[in-house]
Parts: sequence; structure tokens; C-alpha cells
Amino acid sequence: MKKPEVPDFLKNIRVVLARPSHPGNIGSAARAMKTMGLSRLYLVEPKTFPSPEADTLASGAVDLLQHAVVVNTLAEALSDVTVACALTSRRRELTTPLSTPRQTTPELVARARDGEQVALVFGNETFGLSIDEVEQCNRLVTIPGNPEYFSLNLAMAVQVMTYELFSHTGVDVDYLRAEAESATRDEVEGFCGHLDQTLADIGYYERRNGERLMRRLRTLFNRAHLLREEIDILRGFLKQVQRVAHRDDGRRQQ
Amino acid sequence: MKKPEVPDFLKNIRVVLARPSHPGNIGSAARAMKTMGLSRLYLVEPKTFPSPEADTLASGAVDLLQHAVVVNTLAEALSDVTVACALTSRRRELTTPLSTPRQTTPELVARARDGEQVALVFGNETFGLSIDEVEQCNRLVTIPGNPEYFSLNLAMAVQVMTYELFSHTGVDVDYLRAEAESATRDEVEGFCGHLDQTLADIGYYERRNGERLMRRLRTLFNRAHLLREEIDILRGFLKQVQRVAHRDDGRRQQ
Repeated sequence: MKKPEVPDFLKNIRVVLARPSHPGNIGSAARAMKTMGLSRLYLVEPKTFPSPEADTLASGAVDLLQHAVVVNTLAEALSDVTVACALTSRRRELTTPLSTPRQTTPELVARARDGEQVALVFGNETFGLSIDEVEQCNRLVTIPGNPEYFSLNLAMAVQVMTYELFSHTGVDVDYLRAEAESATRDEVEGFCGHLDQTLADIGYYERRNGERLMRRLRTLFNRAHLLREEIDILRGFLKQVQRVAHRDDGRRQQ
Repeated sequence: MKKPEVPDFLKNIRVVLARPSHPGNIGSAARAMKTMGLSRLYLVEPKTFPSPEADTLASGAVDLLQHAVVVNTLAEALSDVTVACALTSRRRELTTPLSTPRQTTPELVARARDGEQVALVFGNETFGLSIDEVEQCNRLVTIPGNPEYFSLNLAMAVQVMTYELFSHTGVDVDYLRAEAESATRDEVEGFCGHLDQTLADIGYYERRNGERLMRRLRTLFNRAHLLREEIDILRGFLKQVQRVAHRDDGRRQQ
């Protein structure tokens, strides 16, 4: 199966880091974005940028840092944006709608597909987003988590939010599945018949409720979603059991 | 609204790090776990543990490191486990079922709720899980992402997987919502009537299709999900407009 492609509309979704203090976090955020198919990074007043530390932590995502747009105000980063999501974990006395990444993402994906520009806005590591920054956004997004210890760092928050976005693109992991042919109902039944015969051949049913036992075994093998290849292996095993059993019969008859 | 509690059954879900090389990753993984309400960490043959670097990166999650169970083999970490998920991003020639975190999680949550022990197994930072380690698990889990750059680091993978788990616990972010009372249909209608009257008062409808304009405005205000408080502000504004308009009328009549 061919590797799927990253959908083109993800270009319409940018990550905006407002006043990040630690260059390492900028690098880690770039790496997190790229793993989830995003490429456009905006930096509002970064304390230190560019920096070797950011490059190191970006790993294979240095290209995102090279193309990052550095601006002086959040307003500049959002000028052509229609939906800006403020990522926040604090209770805010604001009536902007608050939702989780999972609730928000379908709308973001739909708008990006339609060609609108969408922004995910993350605040400073220590102070988060200021009230002024939040008011420039039209959505509040809160990642659900442990109410007693909500200490997601900046790059982790970027990772979770972009993972959520990517999971709504429809690009799945099928291409990583091993190719394996499921057995058909007839093949499973053929195997169960063979098993039944073998159990009879070796005298396993003596003094036992054979019908009930076979029903249990049939349920087990139906649940297991047998593959064609596994049936071949199991039937080879049964054949060998029958061969040994019949050799025994021969000996006894001698 | 009261803070919700972390559900007790999350105690039945452990994170197992197999042969982690970098103590910093152990600390970051512990922090990621705690943000998502998990507490039980197993370490199989960690290269360096305990270590000050792990403690630093764990931040407020040092308690997880203090209670971490260090074992020599993956088998020990899994002995009482019924479902062990191997987190992997490589194509494997294995017929173990492969699924995404979102597909797998409902089953994991259901089993943990029933008291079964569940494990999330993560491999070494460089080599991932060995074939032998994967074979000790009964699920393969792959985080979906950019097929051309899938470079999620260890702690990021722990964060995404535990976020996915937490999102299925039903603990939401409602307690962070600002308290705000939505306006009822009657209140919105009352405001629209006031607006209509005001527009008439100030002569805005002259030479315009008033009915059509009012329909557009009504649609806008219905879509906006007005709050009671916002209606109060808007009606205060309309009253002032009417006052000014009538003062004008008065002047003209003088």
C-alpha cells in the first residue's frame, strides 16, 4: 500500500507562538508541527531567534525554522486569519466560546479546506497568553487533562493540538499494516471440521461433551479473526497429530 | 462549577518504557503521564535511573519517578497485564492487529474500568521496540502523522497516547468555562424589536428595504448566541441612540 500524502490544505493552518522565551521550545514546537504535517510557523517577539538550540531540537524540522515568519505583534500574525484559536488552560472571564481540541478541530479543518486561514495561538511558557492576546482570538481551546496537575509544556501542547488536527485529515495508518489475508467463513469452518475430526481420532471426546467443547472452540477461532496462513499452519499441525494417532493405531493392531 | 476528579480506574493503566537511554525522556514522560491523570510508570532496564536530569524534567511529577517500578525484563512489567499495546511507527511483518490510539482507546478504557490491567509499551528512543518486545504485546498502536517525517520523540508519543486516553474518560473542561447566561429566544426577540424600532426612529429605513435588513440582522444575532449580559449592553446602547435622536427631534421642533 502506498504512503498517503499530507493534504495540501494544512498549509492554511499556522502555528503562532506569542513571545516564546526558550529557543529550545521553538525547535521542539517546529518538530511537533512537522510530525503532524503542518509547516507554517509564526513567531511574535521571540526572545532568542534564530538560535543553535532551536535548530538542534527541531531535528529534521529545521526547514520550518528557516521559513518561520517573525513579527512584532500578534495582530500582524493574524491579519489574514479568519479563525484564531487561543490555547489556554486557565479559567478566563471571557465569553469567547471555550472548547476542546476535538470539538474545535472539525470546523478548523473545514475552513482550511475552503481556503480560509486558521491560526493556533500559543502563549509564553510562563505567563501563557495575555488577556489582550486572547481577545484577538475568536476561539478559546483548552486541552483536557488532570485538573490537579495541568502542566503541559509549550511543545507538548503544540503536539497534542496538531495531532488532533491531523487525526481529522483522514490520512490513516493503513499503509503500515502488514499484508495479511483474512480467512473466509468457509475456510474457518473447514478448519473447525478438521479439528473436530482430529479430536475424535485421538479419543479426546471420550467421556466428554464433544458438542459443547467444539462449540467453545469454534467461538474462540471465530473471535480470533484467523488469517489464511494461520489456518494452513494449524491444519498442518492437525494432519501431523492424525498421522501420529494412526501410526499408534497401526502399532496397536500389530 | 467544581473541578472534576481524575477517574480512579486510570490506576489500572501503566506506561512501560523499555530500555530508555536518556534520563531526560523518563522525566518528560512522567510529566506527560501526570498531566493526563496516569500515575504508574514501569522502567525496563533504564540506562540511567534515578537521575537528577529526570527529576528536573519531571517538574511536578517527581512522585511518579519515586514510585516507578524498575524491572529487568518486559515480561516482568507485563505479568499481570491483559492488554499490552506496543507503540510503534514502523511497518511490522506481524499479524498483531494495528490500530490508532483513537481506535484502541475505548477498549482500553473499558477494560481498565472493569479492573483489568492495561499497559502502554514504548521502546528505546533510537531503536524502538524489538521484535521480541512487540511479540509480548497483543496490540500494535501507531500514532497517525506525516508519512514523510514521522519523528515523534518518546515523551511526545507518551503525551499523545495519554491525551487520547484521557479524552475518553469523560472528564471535560466545563469547569473552566466562564459563567455566562445565554439569552432566551424571547430576550433575543425583544432586543431585535428594540433594534427595529431604533432603526426606524433614526430614519435608517428611509429608501431601504427595512424588512430585508432586519431579517439579515436577526440572523446575525441568532447565530451569535447572545448572552443576557450582552443584550443588556446592546439595549443600553439603543436607548442612548433613541435619546439622542429624540433630542434632535426636540431641537428641530423648537
